[in-house]
Amino acid sequence: MHWWQREDLCYQDGVLFFAGQSVADLVREVGTPGFVYSMGRVLQNLDRLHNALDDADLNGRHSVLYAMKANRFAPLLAALKQSGKCGIDACSPREVEHAISCGFNANEISFTAGSLSRRDYRLLSRYEGLFFDADSIHGIRAWGEMFSGTEIGIRVNPGMGISRDGNERLQYAGDVTTKFGIYREQFHEALAAARDYGLDVTKIHFHTGCGFLTPQLPIWESIIEQCQWFIEQCDSVTRVNVGGGLGVPHVESDQALDLQLWAQALARQFGDKGLHVEIEPGDYLVKDAGLLLLEKTYLERKRDVMFLGVDAGFNIAPEPANYNLPFQPVPVFYQDEPLQTYHVVGNINEALDVWYENARLPDMDEEDFLVLINAGGYSSSMASNHCMRGEFKERLLG
Amino acid sequence: MHWWQREDLCYQDGVLFFAGQSVADLVREVGTPGFVYSMGRVLQNLDRLHNALDDADLNGRHSVLYAMKANRFAPLLAALKQSGKCGIDACSPREVEHAISCGFNANEISFTAGSLSRRDYRLLSRYEGLFFDADSIHGIRAWGEMFSGTEIGIRVNPGMGISRDGNERLQYAGDVTTKFGIYREQFHEALAAARDYGLDVTKIHFHTGCGFLTPQLPIWESIIEQCQWFIEQCDSVTRVNVGGGLGVPHVESDQALDLQLWAQALARQFGDKGLHVEIEPGDYLVKDAGLLLLEKTYLERKRDVMFLGVDAGFNIAPEPANYNLPFQPVPVFYQDEPLQTYHVVGNINEALDVWYENARLPDMDEEDFLVLINAGGYSSSMASNHCMRGEFKERLLG
Repeated sequence: MHWWQREDLCYQDGVLFFAGQSVADLVREVGTPGFVYSMGRVLQNLDRLHNALDDADLNGRHSVLYAMKANRFAPLLAALKQSGKCGIDACSPREVEHAISCGFNANEISFTAGSLSRRDYRLLSRYEGLFFDADSIHGIRAWGEMFSGTEIGIRVNPGMGISRDGNERLQYAGDVTTKFGIYREQFHEALAAARDYGLDVTKIHFHTGCGFLTPQLPIWESIIEQCQWFIEQCDSVTRVNVGGGLGVPHVESDQALDLQLWAQALARQFGDKGLHVEIEPGDYLVKDAGLLLLEKTYLERKRDVMFLGVDAGFNIAPEPANYNLPFQPVPVFYQDEPLQTYHVVGNINEALDVWYENARLPDMDEEDFLVLINAGGYSSSMASNHCMRGEFKERLLG
Repeated sequence: MHWWQREDLCYQDGVLFFAGQSVADLVREVGTPGFVYSMGRVLQNLDRLHNALDDADLNGRHSVLYAMKANRFAPLLAALKQSGKCGIDACSPREVEHAISCGFNANEISFTAGSLSRRDYRLLSRYEGLFFDADSIHGIRAWGEMFSGTEIGIRVNPGMGISRDGNERLQYAGDVTTKFGIYREQFHEALAAARDYGLDVTKIHFHTGCGFLTPQLPIWESIIEQCQWFIEQCDSVTRVNVGGGLGVPHVESDQALDLQLWAQALARQFGDKGLHVEIEPGDYLVKDAGLLLLEKTYLERKRDVMFLGVDAGFNIAPEPANYNLPFQPVPVFYQDEPLQTYHVVGNINEALDVWYENARLPDMDEEDFLVLINAGGYSSSMASNHCMRGEFKERLLG
């Protein structure tokens, strides 16, 4: 039994199956490099979140807004809309436009982003019903000039943050002053600015971390606690948006996030306030619903290391190289044979273009393909054409 | 006098001029976010390299192959072809195709890359005259099967490497065994493979580092010395390619690379061997020939820090965020007024999306634009559409 194995991702008679299909067939049909996404898995992940929130004593409604920057593949967005189970968290005018082209209505979209240009505000003003969270006092004023008398959210910064393994590159809100949101020190000025424009502040938005798992939940809750202060300053608040950041296991030693504990923390913090709780998962919905299909290009010992080359590099899935989030390589065929050690490397001319060091795989001499798991989020959506190696296939499975 | 100031990038009556044009005019005409490249500066950089190599006692010819992955903007490539002063270093079949579409002939292109797929070899086989450097024994065999009896280069790995500030993310060939090239331990097997296919090994290729400046030259030379061993093993070698890696100053404390010292090291190592010396600069030609034009989006104090937001993020120029190579922000208008401190930040919803911390700039309250210098290499060519914020303008100036 492999740590990543589950009902819709496991071996059947020695062949890897994903979403009910043989991965051997998928590499032939889709081609490499190629991303395949399981809509079934995305919806399971979404249902799991809804169920945990339903079970917790929230004493108010909740809603899920999918952070589309994680994966904006149009068929996936269209299927999410079809499910009726979530709205959208968008962070640029083009994202709003794309979500709408995939079937969402403007009033199902919540917009949160910083450093918006005059052109951005102009583009956003087209979408009646779009809910806007201001990330700065400047943003409150800019929105107020266009839509005086409407509702608005404020993104606040609790001055604390967490991430998987304390990864600084993913630190959103910690000791260091970041660009995100409005701090306590400026919050009353922000509320005054909203009043000046007759804006009703009905939502407090904050994002506390990235990729957190069960061990980080106590810190996560203490950060949420910090945010209570902001809610208390503002009688008109009816919604609280705690952002996303829910992590998935990347390596064998990671445990899946305990959603019950997570939802209970939300209930402890907000259950007696009658607030509508919003969450904005991105990775949590799509990351483990995506595989990256790769073809072996070569196998060769260099000095003392066995290298297994593949036909794509970090430019089409930057998390392993740029964020130190490993994508476990998994063989297409496996029948308990002995394992060997490989450095799995890509085809980009950069030292950081290494998919996985010391991967344990069966003898890859006779194998042509392998897959990387957890490739469903922040991969294709962040792909570049570096070295003109930016081509890949994408397919949504049932 | 600013550290980055030079004849074609300086203030005239308080207005920044670049390549003979007012940057105030450029932001209006080109738009933001926008990259502007000075072809004049690129050719100056190229001439400086040629002159240094001409002046050194190389006792053989030399040639410059532009590493097009640094910047493949078609007008820039076409102008390089027009100049007749360099060939191309390509690292993917699409790059070869693009170089040819910009006017280069296949025999002006040297191809060096690892992890090539069967499809890649098939695509490359179309280009008669393309010079191929094998990065692995596998590559020697694959090429030999298609072009038995022709010339080939071998990329070797000296097992040592350098980079600016010992930046591990840019480490090409050091103590850690990397995917690049063929090591001593496997070199005789590589030569035997070449013989098996009747391939003449006429070039030894190696890349020693990335972004090195004058202080790193002694280490650089000691690495080159390691490569002599490979050349000595192989009588048929007539060319040596030392790669690129020549750095440009990123911060005030950096000194420009002393090209005379650099060329003298090459002469010491290869001058008495009558070898044709090839170099493959990328950044050195284009980096300081490019500006990124940005529009201010907001100016706001958060906690104790003054943030200056701009209308683009790290996804269109990843070096500052992902490689820790700062792009100095420079105001469009400046007349010796007092300076203030800003964190210059982009419009992407990630903590790492910071252009420059504690930038010293004049009061930006009344200013609408600023530029980042050193944005000409590995910026637009590595751009992604993350957050659907991937749009930018590009223009080549004289």
